[in-house]
Amino acid sequence: MLIREAQPEDWQEIWPIVRAIVRRGDTYGYEPAMGEEQARSLWMELPRVVFVAEEDGDLLGTYYLKTNQAGPGQHVCNCGYMVAEKARGRGLATAMCEHSQRAAVDLGYRAMQFNFVASSNEGAVRLWRRLGFDEVGRLPRAFRHPEKGFVDALVMYKWLNA
Amino acid sequence: MLIREAQPEDWQEIWPIVRAIVRRGDTYGYEPAMGEEQARSLWMELPRVVFVAEEDGDLLGTYYLKTNQAGPGQHVCNCGYMVAEKARGRGLATAMCEHSQRAAVDLGYRAMQFNFVASSNEGAVRLWRRLGFDEVGRLPRAFRHPEKGFVDALVMYKWLNA
Repeated sequence: MLIREAQPEDWQEIWPIVRAIVRRGDTYGYEPAMGEEQARSLWMELPRVVFVAEEDGDLLGTYYLKTNQAGPGQHVCNCGYMVAEKARGRGLATAMCEHSQRAAVDLGYRAMQFNFVASSNEGAVRLWRRLGFDEVGRLPRAFRHPEKGFVDALVMYKWLNA
Repeated sequence: MLIREAQPEDWQEIWPIVRAIVRRGDTYGYEPAMGEEQARSLWMELPRVVFVAEEDGDLLGTYYLKTNQAGPGQHVCNCGYMVAEKARGRGLATAMCEHSQRAAVDLGYRAMQFNFVASSNEGAVRLWRRLGFDEVGRLPRAFRHPEKGFVDALVMYKWLNA
């Protein structure tokens, strides 16, 4: 598996991955009905850098990296990761998260923050913990899950080793 | 004192207030050297609504209100408040924060979140606590203060009474 910077023409393979996850509405702070153009702008243009995980010419996952707060907060980055349904359970999220931490250090960041992890997304919470992220915040009922209703959202944070 | 919705032509009085606070770099997650056009876009266009506090035709303060996370997070808003130097100590931040909570409820929000409160900004932290906000997160060394160096940033949160 190769993790490389996304090119504009990768979007046609990225969009089905993003669309499936956004439509479910149970993990990300995106509008579930979001259209393709807005998704492209949010995922491909707004971040500082976007990567894809590729295997035999297939895109299996993608992540973005961006500055979380400007000015006095610009040493902390934020990332979001998405894995194609068919590639679940193969360690892609782990590989992308580890890759993103190295990329962040290379770009001069000192820490990484996840702003809005649904507490109901237990697999993700467990994974980020295993990768060294601490739960530094808990937002009461900040995430409205499509089946579970209001659940807490977590803020997770890791100071990066340069 | 009147708190009313900002009009585009208010910007010429809002900008000196925003500029002074942004340049100091000790309270907001904005680039301290930010230019006027970027500031105008961030303060006047990006938010859902912007208010000003006016007295005898003078603008003494301003705040924005926006959705903090889309989709599953869209019931939680975020606000930022700024008070002109000459109007400090007169309760404007309290008045604007109370006003913003009513405005948020009117717009259908259920909670309000401050994402990035410098822990060194003790007056603000004390004020938000007094107004019912809980410290729900602490981001270690996430705020680089111009004199104090890395300090923690707080996430503060309040469920609103409809």
